[in-house]
Amino acid sequence: MTGKIGFKLHTTDGSARRGTLHTARGTVETPAFMPVGTAGTVKAMRPQSVRETGAEIVLGNTYHLMLRPTAERVAKLGGLHQFMKWDGPILTDSGGFQVMSLAKLRKITDHGVSFQSHIDGTALELTPERSMEIQTLLGADIAMVLDECTPLPATKDEVAASMQLSLRWAERSKQAFGEPADRSLFGIVQGGLEPDLRAESAAGLMNIGFDGYAIGGLSVGEGQEAMFKVLDVTAHLLPAEQPRYLMGVGKPADIVGAVVRGIDMFDCVLPTRSGRTGQAFTRRGTVNIKNARHGEDSRPLDDQCRCPACQDFSRAYLSHLHRADEILGAMLLTWHNLQYYQDLMAGLRTAIKGNKLAEFVTEFEDGQATGDIEPL
Amino acid sequence: MTGKIGFKLHTTDGSARRGTLHTARGTVETPAFMPVGTAGTVKAMRPQSVRETGAEIVLGNTYHLMLRPTAERVAKLGGLHQFMKWDGPILTDSGGFQVMSLAKLRKITDHGVSFQSHIDGTALELTPERSMEIQTLLGADIAMVLDECTPLPATKDEVAASMQLSLRWAERSKQAFGEPADRSLFGIVQGGLEPDLRAESAAGLMNIGFDGYAIGGLSVGEGQEAMFKVLDVTAHLLPAEQPRYLMGVGKPADIVGAVVRGIDMFDCVLPTRSGRTGQAFTRRGTVNIKNARHGEDSRPLDDQCRCPACQDFSRAYLSHLHRADEILGAMLLTWHNLQYYQDLMAGLRTAIKGNKLAEFVTEFEDGQATGDIEPL
Repeated sequence: MTGKIGFKLHTTDGSARRGTLHTARGTVETPAFMPVGTAGTVKAMRPQSVRETGAEIVLGNTYHLMLRPTAERVAKLGGLHQFMKWDGPILTDSGGFQVMSLAKLRKITDHGVSFQSHIDGTALELTPERSMEIQTLLGADIAMVLDECTPLPATKDEVAASMQLSLRWAERSKQAFGEPADRSLFGIVQGGLEPDLRAESAAGLMNIGFDGYAIGGLSVGEGQEAMFKVLDVTAHLLPAEQPRYLMGVGKPADIVGAVVRGIDMFDCVLPTRSGRTGQAFTRRGTVNIKNARHGEDSRPLDDQCRCPACQDFSRAYLSHLHRADEILGAMLLTWHNLQYYQDLMAGLRTAIKGNKLAEFVTEFEDGQATGDIEPL
Repeated sequence: MTGKIGFKLHTTDGSARRGTLHTARGTVETPAFMPVGTAGTVKAMRPQSVRETGAEIVLGNTYHLMLRPTAERVAKLGGLHQFMKWDGPILTDSGGFQVMSLAKLRKITDHGVSFQSHIDGTALELTPERSMEIQTLLGADIAMVLDECTPLPATKDEVAASMQLSLRWAERSKQAFGEPADRSLFGIVQGGLEPDLRAESAAGLMNIGFDGYAIGGLSVGEGQEAMFKVLDVTAHLLPAEQPRYLMGVGKPADIVGAVVRGIDMFDCVLPTRSGRTGQAFTRRGTVNIKNARHGEDSRPLDDQCRCPACQDFSRAYLSHLHRADEILGAMLLTWHNLQYYQDLMAGLRTAIKGNKLAEFVTEFEDGQATGDIEPL
C-alpha cells in the first residue's frame, strides 16, 4: 500500500463494509462521503471548515475545471490540491457526466464527445485520453474512467450499446492513465437497470483491472427502489478487497440503503446545493428553513449537531438569513448539511464495526419518520 | 463610566485622537472602524471571523431590520446581539438614511417620514419616536438620532431648513430615548458644506446634550476635498471628551484624512460590498482581482496580511473564484478587506500613540501610490 491506493477491509455487517482507503495524501475511513468541490471549491466553505466536518476526501469536477480556469492553468499553479488548499486526497470525475448534462451541441462518437462550453461556447472535445490527461494535470489521487452515463429511459439494446462504448472507453482510459506510482484509476459499471448488462459491465471492467470500482448511471430519476435493485445485483460482483463507489448518491436514506448493500464511497451535491436554497438535513428529517413557522423559533436547527449553524444560531436567525438571501445563510446551512452527512457516515461506520447496523438503520428511519420538531 | 458609554481620551497627535470607548458590552479602541451588519449579519462573515479581524463593534441598520425580520421579532428573540451572535457593542443607525436611499414613495413632514418598504411595499412610518423605539427593541448599545441627510446639491436655505428639521428631530429623539442605564445616544451634525450651518448644528446638538456626536451628510458624492473642509471646520467644535463619529466613510484615504482631522469612529459598506464584487484594498492600493493578469499569479493578494485569503490562497485562485461567481470568493475578499481596514485602524492608533502620525500618513500614501504589485 505504498503510493498507489490501498483498501483495507476491516469488518463486515451483512453486506455492509467498514474499511480504510489509503492514499498518498492520507487515509479515508469508509463508508465515506465526499463533498463536491465542483469548480475547485466546496461551495460556500473554506477547506479547513470542510475538514472540520470530518470529511477526509473531496471530489473535483473535470468538466468545470477544464473550462475554467483550465487544467493546464491549475497544473501550472501546482495542481488542484495547492490551488484550492486541500491537502487530503481528491477524487476527480471524468467530465463525461457534466458534459452530457451541462454542455451544448454535444456529439458522441466512438472517439469521444465533442461539445461547446456552457460558459463561453468554446468548442471542446473530451476523449478517454484527454480526460486522463486533464485528471493527471489536476493531480487527482483517484481518477475516473471516461464513460457514458446512459440517458434513461432507453431500450435494452441502447443501454447495451452504451455500456459497451463505456467498456471500450474504460480500456482506453486505463491505457492512457498508465501506471503512476501514487495515483489510482477507478472503473465505472454501467448497464442501466438491466442485471445482466450490469454483470457484463462489471466483468469487463474487472478483466481490464482497476484500483476500485464505481457504480454509475444511478440517481438520475430511476427512484430509490430501482437503484437498490441494481446495487443488490451489482455490488457483490465487485472484488471484495477493493473500494466500491456509488456515484452521485444521494439523499441520506439512499446512502444508508447503499451502505447496507455494500457500498464504500459516495458523493453528491445535495448537502451543498440544498444548503444554498434553505433545505437542511437533520436527525428528524428534512427542514425547509424558510418556512414561516421557523420565523420566531429560538431553538437550534438540530440540537444534536455540533456545526456552527446549530451551536451559535436559532432557527429564526437561519430563517431570516435565507429569506434575506444573505450569504451567511448559505454558508451556515451548507456547513450544517455537510456536518450532518459526515455524522451520518461516522454513525454508519461505528454501527458496522459493532455489528449493529440493523439497529442503526431502524433508529435512522425512526428519526426521519418523526418529522421535524413540532412548531412552538 | 459605569453602564452608559464613557470615552477616555488617551493622547493626541495634532488633531488626531487616541482613545477608548467604554460600553456595557466591552471597550472599543479608537480610532475605530465598525463593519456594517446591515440585516443582522456582516455579509459573508461569521461573527467570530469579524471578531478575528480585530473589530470590536459592529453597526446594524434600523431600516433593514425594521422591515425584516422586524424589531419586534428581534426583541422577542432576545435582541440583536443574541440574534446575530455578536456579544460586543452594536451601534444602530436611525434608519433615516436608508429610508431616503432605498424606500419608495417617501414623504417627509415635520412629524417624520412615511414610505413604502422596498421589499414588499408595506406602508411604514419613521419618526424620531419610532426610530428610538426600534433601536431600543434591537438593544443597540449606541443609538443614533433620526435626522435628514440633506440631499445635495441644495440651496443654502434648503440645507438650513433641513438642518433645522434634524435639530428638532434630535430633540425629540433625546426625549423619546430617555436615560437608559446602559445605552447611549449620539447626535448628528448636519449642514451640508456650509461652515456656519455646521457650526449652528453642532451648537444646537451640544445644547441638547448627547453621549457622542456624529458628522452626517458626507461621503454622498461631494468629494474628499469638500468632506475634509467640513471636518476642518466642524470636528474641533465638538466636545473633546466625547467620541466623534464620521458616518458612512469611507475609502482608506478618507479614513486616514479624517483621523488626522480628529475623528474617532467610522463605518462604511465599502470593504464588505467591494469584497463581494472582487475589489480588494491592500497596502499597495486597490486591486481588481478579476483582472486577467491575476489569473496565473501564484502570489498572495497582500503579503503583509494575515487574513485567510492572503495566508492560504493565491491571487490566481481568488481571481478564479470571482470569475466563477463562487461564494467562497465573496467570503475571502470580504474577510481580507475587513482585515485591511482593521489593520489600518490599528496602525493609526499606534502612530498617534507614538506621535508619529505624519510618518504613518506618508508611508500610507507612498504605499497606495506604489500601485498594485507588478504583473509577473
